Amino acid sequence: MTGLFVTFEGGDGAGKTTQSDLLESWLRERGETVLRTREPGGSDLGVELRQIVLHRRGHITPRAEALLYAADRAHHIGTVVRPALESGAVVVQDRYLDSSVAYQGAGRVLDPTEVRDLSLWAAEGLLPDVTILLDLDERRGRERLSERTEYDRLESEADDFHQRVRHAYLALAEAEPERFLILDATRPVDELALAIRERIEPLLP
Amino acid sequence: MTGLFVTFEGGDGAGKTTQSDLLESWLRERGETVLRTREPGGSDLGVELRQIVLHRRGHITPRAEALLYAADRAHHIGTVVRPALESGAVVVQDRYLDSSVAYQGAGRVLDPTEVRDLSLWAAEGLLPDVTILLDLDERRGRERLSERTEYDRLESEADDFHQRVRHAYLALAEAEPERFLILDATRPVDELALAIRERIEPLLP
Repeated sequence: MTGLFVTFEGGDGAGKTTQSDLLESWLRERGETVLRTREPGGSDLGVELRQIVLHRRGHITPRAEALLYAADRAHHIGTVVRPALESGAVVVQDRYLDSSVAYQGAGRVLDPTEVRDLSLWAAEGLLPDVTILLDLDERRGRERLSERTEYDRLESEADDFHQRVRHAYLALAEAEPERFLILDATRPVDELALAIRERIEPLLP
Repeated sequence: MTGLFVTFEGGDGAGKTTQSDLLESWLRERGETVLRTREPGGSDLGVELRQIVLHRRGHITPRAEALLYAADRAHHIGTVVRPALESGAVVVQDRYLDSSVAYQGAGRVLDPTEVRDLSLWAAEGLLPDVTILLDLDERRGRERLSERTEYDRLESEADDFHQRVRHAYLALAEAEPERFLILDATRPVDELALAIRERIEPLLP
């Protein structure tokens, strides 16, 4: 495949959309063909599955949920991402298998290794060329947003969950340093954009 | 688990519904609690997924399709079948993982072993106590139904596919003789019902 596959990872609010927008603009100015996409919901089938996974009333078992994400991934990679990469495009994608592994691992129900294997089976082994991890201390982020200094029990649980997601992401990045670029999401937007361009530029044709 | 898990397998038209009805009646007369169910579509989530897998317009990639069947299976086994078995019921189910393996194997796209592993992961390893395979030579069945003696190309391809499904089922049954009861689906209905009862009766509490 002649294209380049770039994924953005990190918690909600870490700035993935902002940095994806800036990267896309820069790539287009250079004359690259860019596909912006996301998971879940990056294909026609995926829109239906995203509706089920994120907005359906009623409980879904953890394995069923993981399999629905994997089905979305299989269809999205097979019908959208691979054709774009084969045509030479740069694919800039919001969330991929690292999200599944980090969030499932943080949830402590399913084995993260099994979740990763499931994703790789779905995607026929496709890994990104580069993964940008926008790392953010969720507690600090929330403290800055809120005047309150105390959390109630549910908020603390949610906070613990996000801390586990963060640590799971960092562990994934440490295991594959050649694929990941870890960036402190609290740095200024233009500094982050520059760091991302410097990482991507040598990989462009 | 204190219940009994019985699955029916075989091609369409082999008589699975008729024999399931007769088995259910006989079990109820003996005072058993019976759950009749099916895959895909045996749970609330499954009804939505069955609609997507069987009736959606547009192509679904083979891996996405296999993962949707597995998601249906995970939710169905987790929320319907296991609770029934734990309460001591006899579960009589139309199609289970052997269908996935036989049909996917016959389609010659995905590795049947991978499809089986996917199903077992979805179902947390649950295998039926007994699987009734209603074996039918699809060509003979169709020849009896039709006056025509020649097939056009598409019909022949469909016929080859059904022959491959049949042989895949028989290979699965030979690999697990202690779980499968293979029955010639052309035998009289009451003979088949009797053979099934004789297989099930010693396993009831």
